[in-house]
Amino acid sequence: MQLQLATWPEVESYLTRSQGIIMPIGSTEQHGPNGLVGTDAICAEEVAKGVGDRTGAMVAPTISVGMAQHHLGFPGSMTLRPSTLIAVVRDMVESLAVHGFRRFFFLNGHGGNIATLTAAFSEIYAGASLAPASGAAANMPAIRCRLKNWWEAKQVGALSRELYGRAEGSHATPSEVSMTWAAYPEAAKPMTLDPEIAPSGDFADAADYRRKFPDGRIGSNPGLSSVEAGQRILEAAIAGMAAEYESWLKDA
Amino acid sequence: MQLQLATWPEVESYLTRSQGIIMPIGSTEQHGPNGLVGTDAICAEEVAKGVGDRTGAMVAPTISVGMAQHHLGFPGSMTLRPSTLIAVVRDMVESLAVHGFRRFFFLNGHGGNIATLTAAFSEIYAGASLAPASGAAANMPAIRCRLKNWWEAKQVGALSRELYGRAEGSHATPSEVSMTWAAYPEAAKPMTLDPEIAPSGDFADAADYRRKFPDGRIGSNPGLSSVEAGQRILEAAIAGMAAEYESWLKDA
Amino acid sequence: MQLQLATWPEVESYLTRSQGIIMPIGSTEQHGPNGLVGTDAICAEEVAKGVGDRTGAMVAPTISVGMAQHHLGFPGSMTLRPSTLIAVVRDMVESLAVHGFRRFFFLNGHGGNIATLTAAFSEIYAGASLAPASGAAANMPAIRCRLKNWWEAKQVGALSRELYGRAEGSHATPSEVSMTWAAYPEAAKPMTLDPEIAPSGDFADAADYRRKFPDGRIGSNPGLSSVEAGQRILEAAIAGMAAEYESWLKDA
Amino acid sequence: MQLQLATWPEVESYLTRSQGIIMPIGSTEQHGPNGLVGTDAICAEEVAKGVGDRTGAMVAPTISVGMAQHHLGFPGSMTLRPSTLIAVVRDMVESLAVHGFRRFFFLNGHGGNIATLTAAFSEIYAGASLAPASGAAANMPAIRCRLKNWWEAKQVGALSRELYGRAEGSHATPSEVSMTWAAYPEAAKPMTLDPEIAPSGDFADAADYRRKFPDGRIGSNPGLSSVEAGQRILEAAIAGMAAEYESWLKDA
Amino acid sequence: MQLQLATWPEVESYLTRSQGIIMPIGSTEQHGPNGLVGTDAICAEEVAKGVGDRTGAMVAPTISVGMAQHHLGFPGSMTLRPSTLIAVVRDMVESLAVHGFRRFFFLNGHGGNIATLTAAFSEIYAGASLAPASGAAANMPAIRCRLKNWWEAKQVGALSRELYGRAEGSHATPSEVSMTWAAYPEAAKPMTLDPEIAPSGDFADAADYRRKFPDGRIGSNPGLSSVEAGQRILEAAIAGMAAEYESWLKDA
Amino acid sequence: MQLQLATWPEVESYLTRSQGIIMPIGSTEQHGPNGLVGTDAICAEEVAKGVGDRTGAMVAPTISVGMAQHHLGFPGSMTLRPSTLIAVVRDMVESLAVHGFRRFFFLNGHGGNIATLTAAFSEIYAGASLAPASGAAANMPAIRCRLKNWWEAKQVGALSRELYGRAEGSHATPSEVSMTWAAYPEAAKPMTLDPEIAPSGDFADAADYRRKFPDGRIGSNPGLSSVEAGQRILEAAIAGMAAEYESWLKDA
Repeated sequence: MQLQLATWPEVESYLTRSQGIIMPIGSTEQHGPNGLVGTDAICAEEVAKGVGDRTGAMVAPTISVGMAQHHLGFPGSMTLRPSTLIAVVRDMVESLAVHGFRRFFFLNGHGGNIATLTAAFSEIYAGASLAPASGAAANMPAIRCRLKNWWEAKQVGALSRELYGRAEGSHATPSEVSMTWAAYPEAAKPMTLDPEIAPSGDFADAADYRRKFPDGRIGSNPGLSSVEAGQRILEAAIAGMAAEYESWLKDA
Repeated sequence: MQLQLATWPEVESYLTRSQGIIMPIGSTEQHGPNGLVGTDAICAEEVAKGVGDRTGAMVAPTISVGMAQHHLGFPGSMTLRPSTLIAVVRDMVESLAVHGFRRFFFLNGHGGNIATLTAAFSEIYAGASLAPASGAAANMPAIRCRLKNWWEAKQVGALSRELYGRAEGSHATPSEVSMTWAAYPEAAKPMTLDPEIAPSGDFADAADYRRKFPDGRIGSNPGLSSVEAGQRILEAAIAGMAAEYESWLKDA
Repeated sequence: MQLQLATWPEVESYLTRSQGIIMPIGSTEQHGPNGLVGTDAICAEEVAKGVGDRTGAMVAPTISVGMAQHHLGFPGSMTLRPSTLIAVVRDMVESLAVHGFRRFFFLNGHGGNIATLTAAFSEIYAGASLAPASGAAANMPAIRCRLKNWWEAKQVGALSRELYGRAEGSHATPSEVSMTWAAYPEAAKPMTLDPEIAPSGDFADAADYRRKFPDGRIGSNPGLSSVEAGQRILEAAIAGMAAEYESWLKDA
Repeated sequence: MQLQLATWPEVESYLTRSQGIIMPIGSTEQHGPNGLVGTDAICAEEVAKGVGDRTGAMVAPTISVGMAQHHLGFPGSMTLRPSTLIAVVRDMVESLAVHGFRRFFFLNGHGGNIATLTAAFSEIYAGASLAPASGAAANMPAIRCRLKNWWEAKQVGALSRELYGRAEGSHATPSEVSMTWAAYPEAAKPMTLDPEIAPSGDFADAADYRRKFPDGRIGSNPGLSSVEAGQRILEAAIAGMAAEYESWLKDA
Repeated sequence: MQLQLATWPEVESYLTRSQGIIMPIGSTEQHGPNGLVGTDAICAEEVAKGVGDRTGAMVAPTISVGMAQHHLGFPGSMTLRPSTLIAVVRDMVESLAVHGFRRFFFLNGHGGNIATLTAAFSEIYAGASLAPASGAAANMPAIRCRLKNWWEAKQVGALSRELYGRAEGSHATPSEVSMTWAAYPEAAKPMTLDPEIAPSGDFADAADYRRKFPDGRIGSNPGLSSVEAGQRILEAAIAGMAAEYESWLKDA
Repeated sequence: MQLQLATWPEVESYLTRSQGIIMPIGSTEQHGPNGLVGTDAICAEEVAKGVGDRTGAMVAPTISVGMAQHHLGFPGSMTLRPSTLIAVVRDMVESLAVHGFRRFFFLNGHGGNIATLTAAFSEIYAGASLAPASGAAANMPAIRCRLKNWWEAKQVGALSRELYGRAEGSHATPSEVSMTWAAYPEAAKPMTLDPEIAPSGDFADAADYRRKFPDGRIGSNPGLSSVEAGQRILEAAIAGMAAEYESWLKDA
């Protein structure tokens, strides 16, 4: 169930049977010559919806703009400062905690969010742990946050390797581009890229990134993307993430 | 053109012909017994997409969680603290300004955002105006931000009055609920409400709101909502906001 | 009673009979060729004192510098960033709440403060509403904040129309300039202005404001100001705001 | 000249002959059984006005609420958090720097402000010094801030000792209480205090303060206050501070 | 060369031949029954000093308190909120950038710092990348930050496996405990632990951590620690990190 | 006992007999031609360790980077913005308060820290005092913070006067330089300075400081420093500070 498509009495009812919620988070940033600026947000949202359908979990609205400073060298890329994103995650979690949500499963679609999101969890926990200084510690509800990247599902890794081998790369990958085309077939832009496989390596800030990766891709050939592959990868990601969510919810 | 569904070369090309962008902003909050929690985000997004289609304007990803402290008494409502939302708007505008965007038209779907969004514009302007203290003032690009609520289109007001008269009310209105049903017909929840028209009045914080408006509505009867009305209202809002955007872009 | 002119035992005594307080807030910004930089602060303070005298309400010290980014193009104008003003209002309210004050009536003299002040109220409420995350929600006192602009008193509107008609305008109005002259007759600067009535219209930031309104006025002719008119307008504003305060205090 | 009572063209003219401005800052806090809550703000404001009259310096609006956490045990006391006061001082200085002010003489009426105000100066300087990281350092205007407490004038010390000897104490002193009575004779509250001279000593936070100094005074007997003494002390403070301001402005 | 043990003319001279600096960062947190609270800070500092000696690099003062919210269930553990640590890292880097340092190699001793430190780098880069909004972008110096954990040196991994096999674990490891004993032999506390090898697994916040790992260790047997092993591991870490630093400095 | 060299069970045991802790804080900044950049941190740390040894008090890790904006004109100097340092002190105190520490004795080695540190104490107290707004005030533990500069010990003043007379000065003094040489004899840099005694006077920001004090010293002749003098001064400072700590702990 998507929170945005539920009424408040439906949310109230949901909370009598579960305290868990899926929090999709993506990014708005360049994805190479033929990948969509919204790729990471679309992938996180599509997988999250699928997990919600399969497990009955509530799905929060997608955080569409994440931490993407390093992509600012390319038009259309947007970023929140890490300190801003921390505040956003804190406010969203604290809002839902008012109603009784306690288990927050962040389904992430962008590697650049991992550090800030992990820091945000600690910021939330620290707000509660340091509360004894104001005498309020004893009553703190046991909020727990979890971060999983959809591509960590082992089904996804196997499929990506099978489909693309070393052309998968690490940014603007054919797997993620395919998944967005499965969601928005009208946005598919088949293209032969030159070089076929983009360069790889480390980078520091946005200027450094653009210098090293002039068309935005890292190590990938998204020219191999297809709607059909996207459907298969989406299905694998949903299966893997649904299992992750259910297993975590049981243990946490 | 939706930014999320564009590639970076397409954004680069767009910037050669326009410096304007539509920034839809909504909220995630209760909308009465049969309205969707995502109503304000959905309405802003649907109108923004329509304006983008009609005018050729770029449309940024929707800010789905806004300032809705006063709705926190109802399950599922989420809020950003005003100080957080100010930071989000600043970072989004500053990111897009890196690429050359200069005219930011915030298409708003939630009355509770108006104050904070207006404050955010001043925060952005102040960051630049106070820059002489660090010597950087002279080179500041002329960023301008504009806020318009979709329901301010005069076509919308006329249509709402014709369709619902005094049952329109001011929160969880049949107009906005209808518009979400037009976008998501499967989420439509026809219902007879009791009382038919909800109480009206002022409120302070979330506790005060819930006490005065026990089912979440203010002055409205969203039981009158329909997909068909939603389509007409959406069309009116798009026409009105497209004219607003084009007129502002020409003058600003 | 002005808080600044009371002793602490007098404040203690006051709190046994009322939990309300008037919070005057103005601005320090240009008011055209013959209006005072302190106009908005002076007006708010004078009206607040009068309301305090008439109703017996406590009156807090005036917030003299508000949100006036858009006036920074003119020498002497000062602004707080919106995020700073939010923190100021929060700290002032929380300080007074320590002693038992619960109803905060912000008597405002500057349109540019409205958005940020409204956001500040939500920031205060959110601090309390989101408290369940730290377990402290249950004990929150019911603080309520209210914003009223002195010119909203219907007696004031009627009188301004009678005295100045369309020469009233919207910034550096003869009504507000007159009121400051009534308070500080030695600062009165009778003057014939050219053009008599200033241009009107929208504006974005400080640079845009100065370009469109070169002497600082918007739509007004403060050349018509007089001490005598100021006395009448002040009296009307006090009467209107006293009624607003008492009515709100009873209901809130 | 008081900024609040000047027009913007007058400020523009002033800036052609001086870049200096007096910034009065006080506090809103208990001052014992017969001292006013506004004592520190009133004293700073009265001395600043006198210095302005004598030297022709511009005088900014008074910062009425300062850092007074330690007085929160007494009704009516208000504080800004130090971090808030730092932001206020930064914004005020940066606003005035837009217009060309460069020398900021903070005329302080409250010991509790000294630490935070000094920190605020460093925050402002650091904002500029650390600017090379964003490449803007070279153009920074040479802003300088200075803090002086009115009671540091040697004329004041001599007079206080002559008038009150060891009954002067360190909080709610007869000197400062007298000065407020000179400004507001109607607020004078002659009173015999018990004990005549309040206890002295160190304190930590507000609770500790109230425990050690049950009526709010520290080491003083404000029962000795008088309007006439206040006039003499005010005159001494003005003379001393005017000399300080002019000497600093010449050297800085 | 340690910055703390250099004079400013020596630093000035250093900058004529290198723009690089080693920034050691650790943590202050429990390390099981016989490990030191300062383990992570000591290890980072000792390795950094060794790297400085070997490569001639300048070594900044150690950040001793890091992000250790999850250890707050044990006496003596300290944490900075992630938002605080981000500000600390930003200020330290920006300070050193004033003098001409451009390459910041953070030598890290605590896994819990990785996310926040990575976010801090992005916060610094974003401050510069978003600068075009204030017109200052063009002059930004090319600051680069790098994070390496001392245990990532491949020499260290090989040695740890040889010495401790699966008793190494992941918190309060015999390798790190040994290294601190090598630095402070008087603090060595040989001990037989029960169980010999601590439990392993995931955790959320501090309360969860203490519940799952009652004596503070995760998966390790620090009972196997020794001064002699510490000397060998320290040597391996210095060799590995010196190579990392020099290689990065050449390429970056 | 140094916290860094203790295990958590040792800290737990310490807390059964004392709630006090020594918090050394220094600075990283130029100290003239032959003084160490780390002088202030080294002095605070050495004195703190000595006090810990003498009194049995726990000693926290040293805050090595303080508020030193005014030294940024000299290579190697580092500063935290005052707002950052306030956050660091708050987090450190609140962390230790979780475990039961209640008396925080900041042993300071740098005059430039005094204002910000004092402000930080008020920020911590204000966080608790303003808590009634969220209903949590009643349970606040009585945290108390104290600031003492090691050079305030009367034994130190007497010895400095005896050893150096008017050559002591106020920055890069022979007393502090000697103390660092006592701790790190290998870093001693005997030198004849020209002029022997540096100029004295006031300063504003970093640029002003460098202009007035071209080699970094103020009023001092650190050419007179020696290891042997350092040992005597260190001993005097330890004796004085140990007495201060014990006396305060008994009374507070």
